[in-house]
Amino acid sequence: MKLYTHSSSNAAYHVRITLNYKQIPYDPEYLLLDEATGEHRNPEYLDLNPLGMVPTLIDGRRVYRQSLAILEYLEEVYPHPPILPGSSRDRERIRSLAQIIVTHTDPLTNARVNAFLRNDLGIDSKGRKKWNRTWIRKGLSALEHQIAGNPATSTYCHGDLPTLADICLVPVVACATEKGEDVERYPTITRIYQSCMMLSAFRTGMEDG
Amino acid sequence: MKLYTHSSSNAAYHVRITLNYKQIPYDPEYLLLDEATGEHRNPEYLDLNPLGMVPTLIDGRRVYRQSLAILEYLEEVYPHPPILPGSSRDRERIRSLAQIIVTHTDPLTNARVNAFLRNDLGIDSKGRKKWNRTWIRKGLSALEHQIAGNPATSTYCHGDLPTLADICLVPVVACATEKGEDVERYPTITRIYQSCMMLSAFRTGMEDG
Repeated sequence: MKLYTHSSSNAAYHVRITLNYKQIPYDPEYLLLDEATGEHRNPEYLDLNPLGMVPTLIDGRRVYRQSLAILEYLEEVYPHPPILPGSSRDRERIRSLAQIIVTHTDPLTNARVNAFLRNDLGIDSKGRKKWNRTWIRKGLSALEHQIAGNPATSTYCHGDLPTLADICLVPVVACATEKGEDVERYPTITRIYQSCMMLSAFRTGMEDG
Repeated sequence: MKLYTHSSSNAAYHVRITLNYKQIPYDPEYLLLDEATGEHRNPEYLDLNPLGMVPTLIDGRRVYRQSLAILEYLEEVYPHPPILPGSSRDRERIRSLAQIIVTHTDPLTNARVNAFLRNDLGIDSKGRKKWNRTWIRKGLSALEHQIAGNPATSTYCHGDLPTLADICLVPVVACATEKGEDVERYPTITRIYQSCMMLSAFRTGMEDG
């Protein structure tokens, strides 16, 4: 498999962690980011991925584009170790925690949105900082609220093995720290982040960015 | 089941269509939107849904919060008629089309983001229009690019029965039209939207907003 990836993309980091965790070998292909748009504007790449975003995963002649769809696919085709274990209710909880981040946090703070705020709406760095901090705090607060004190939360967001929820948690925490957010305000998230970073799949996923 | 819902939420509309399509009875509970934040700030509701967003689905003592997680759960527990049919590759395509909208379009143009642009960053209505139009056009262009001319596309985004991809397509098209976007620029999307709107599950889902 070949993975188009970029260091600033949390979504690409989710796929790298999952490929590592499931021990699926892949060749990373690092893309350049267009400063004006925060997207990958190479015409050949746009034909593969019309949004100009990463990740894109190539498996033979098949092209897979959206991170959560890729993770669900990898889980179906390479079920061991699972990232969506348990009953339908367990999976609903795991997916719901993941989506706080993937739907309501990451897409608001990524490179293309920051480029648009700066270049098209003229928002200065102070305004962009306020913007990023707002959505990161709302996302992490909601996630903390849902996992803290919940009996299903253990070493990881859902039980004693990492799941899709942890795979989505780690990149946003790294990103929040990089943007100057004090993640110690979210003690359960911080504890789970540290547990994840003891696993090579998560560490290597970060280093390979 | 009880569904907390609001007319301005595409995510709540996805769940209404799915409940209708799978013929699962539910009681809608309509929430008020706080103008300053574009969120639902009732403290009791925030305890159910800490992001202050809809939908929230209540089934007995269980609380389900994120639209895609809810749709995946309903598909597992009420598999007929399916919204994620076929092979793992089919499901990957359907989920990937859905996520262009659910991850990269809807969360950028919803009420809370528009409230923040207006009230916290001082963006005027012209700037907000440019913002909304940009993300809607990028999303619909990418979706059109991926479905137009693809042999898997038929009456609907994937085959001859509606799927998760169509459930995510219809609300964003209705929303784009409302925001003044000319959706005729996306002929495959427009054709599929019209096919969906011939089905009562989609029409009733809109009327019940």
